[in-house]
Amino acid sequence: MNITLAQAEKMISVAKQKSTSLDTKMNIAIVDAGANLVAFGRMDGAWLGSLDISIKKAKTARYFDMNTGIIGELSQPAGPLYNIEHSNNGLITFPGGVPIKNKDGEIIGAIGVSGSSVENDHAVAEAGATAI
Amino acid sequence: MNITLAQAEKMISVAKQKSTSLDTKMNIAIVDAGANLVAFGRMDGAWLGSLDISIKKAKTARYFDMNTGIIGELSQPAGPLYNIEHSNNGLITFPGGVPIKNKDGEIIGAIGVSGSSVENDHAVAEAGATAI
Amino acid sequence: MNITLAQAEKMISVAKQKSTSLDTKMNIAIVDAGANLVAFGRMDGAWLGSLDISIKKAKTARYFDMNTGIIGELSQPAGPLYNIEHSNNGLITFPGGVPIKNKDGEIIGAIGVSGSSVENDHAVAEAGATAI
Amino acid sequence: MNITLAQAEKMISVAKQKSTSLDTKMNIAIVDAGANLVAFGRMDGAWLGSLDISIKKAKTARYFDMNTGIIGELSQPAGPLYNIEHSNNGLITFPGGVPIKNKDGEIIGAIGVSGSSVENDHAVAEAGATAI
Repeated sequence: MNITLAQAEKMISVAKQKSTSLDTKMNIAIVDAGANLVAFGRMDGAWLGSLDISIKKAKTARYFDMNTGIIGELSQPAGPLYNIEHSNNGLITFPGGVPIKNKDGEIIGAIGVSGSSVENDHAVAEAGATAI
Repeated sequence: MNITLAQAEKMISVAKQKSTSLDTKMNIAIVDAGANLVAFGRMDGAWLGSLDISIKKAKTARYFDMNTGIIGELSQPAGPLYNIEHSNNGLITFPGGVPIKNKDGEIIGAIGVSGSSVENDHAVAEAGATAI
Repeated sequence: MNITLAQAEKMISVAKQKSTSLDTKMNIAIVDAGANLVAFGRMDGAWLGSLDISIKKAKTARYFDMNTGIIGELSQPAGPLYNIEHSNNGLITFPGGVPIKNKDGEIIGAIGVSGSSVENDHAVAEAGATAI
Repeated sequence: MNITLAQAEKMISVAKQKSTSLDTKMNIAIVDAGANLVAFGRMDGAWLGSLDISIKKAKTARYFDMNTGIIGELSQPAGPLYNIEHSNNGLITFPGGVPIKNKDGEIIGAIGVSGSSVENDHAVAEAGATAI
């Protein structure tokens, strides 16, 4: 099972609406079950540096099938996954990456959002991930 | 002058239609005037290896403000730009990358398409580039 | 709106004077609105390792449109952006990177300075950024 | 013996004048005897993709202490240095990179120019290299 482009575009559309409702400008990336990019959109005026971060958040969420913020709790100094960010050409482990599941609960991809506070990033990612 | 996300999404939509009319499945990437990704879409079943190629085609077209195929003619063995592909973290110099101009003729970004023959890739890129 | 080479060279000139007045030797990098290098100068005897750091500081400041030191406060262990430095092929998040604005307050680029204490690096960057 | 920043800036100034006289817009990079960047300037409107190429030309010229075009003759298919461009994180071996010598004939750095035809690139590099 894999996410379709139509589903990914629907998620980006919903994520953009959520972003606008929060008065933010986001980079939004969707990867498939293979952690490869399916769709991407950078809202006008969004931070340029968040382009790469949004893609890395999506990949990180699919690499480990969990919200990125959970990994970030484990990767702190003295934590069990300290500096895991050095793997996979760079992980991003703060909030904003969320796995995407189909109606049977199977993970079919992930969404990564970056451009505001991590709370806003996560809220927009969650809105996108649950849009289908 | 820079391309907007709305313009980029319109181009991807038109490029997808052109791709379907050619019975192909494409990766479609749009970069802005700074050669940074604005929007991306990978059609269901499109070659996975074409993901990176489409992005590199878009960047290459903006890096030199010309169709990628023109550079490829100059980068052949014994040509004046032999092996230019080693620059900029990897160029793609066969057809499928096309600059995007506004109505005043200013370059505001570029589109890169990959997933079929280079003739089809170019035709889809051209359709996208002229959609606005 | 984008910085011109003449503006960038003026900033490097002023930054060099400031650096000399502080008895330091700096690497000074200027990027445009697309975060691509416009001008660079390495003062005689400046640290070689600061070459890459100055460029990364300039890019980081433009990537997020803020002084690099602000990001560094947020990327500490237990901070909301912990290990953000792994994105964008490496960020530098301690002081010395400053956005450059035109007279209308629009960001047209950024300056990055490295070669001494972070206080001196920031002071020289600030002198350069406000030279036009 | 190593090139100074003042010498490098003089070379960039002369190279810019030569570029303007040829009605071209260039990226101009100067490296020192250690093949590390000393100074750089991108003329307004110059190709963005030539940024990296100009730096790689300067490095290539110093790596082997000869004009880049000479290496390009040897790196062709069936040539003795076939595909040497894969080394050193990417060489550029067509014309536009020229070693810089002091008055005693010692190599103290190199200049790389990119933004037009290879003939123009080389002419501007030669003008810069002989400016001191």
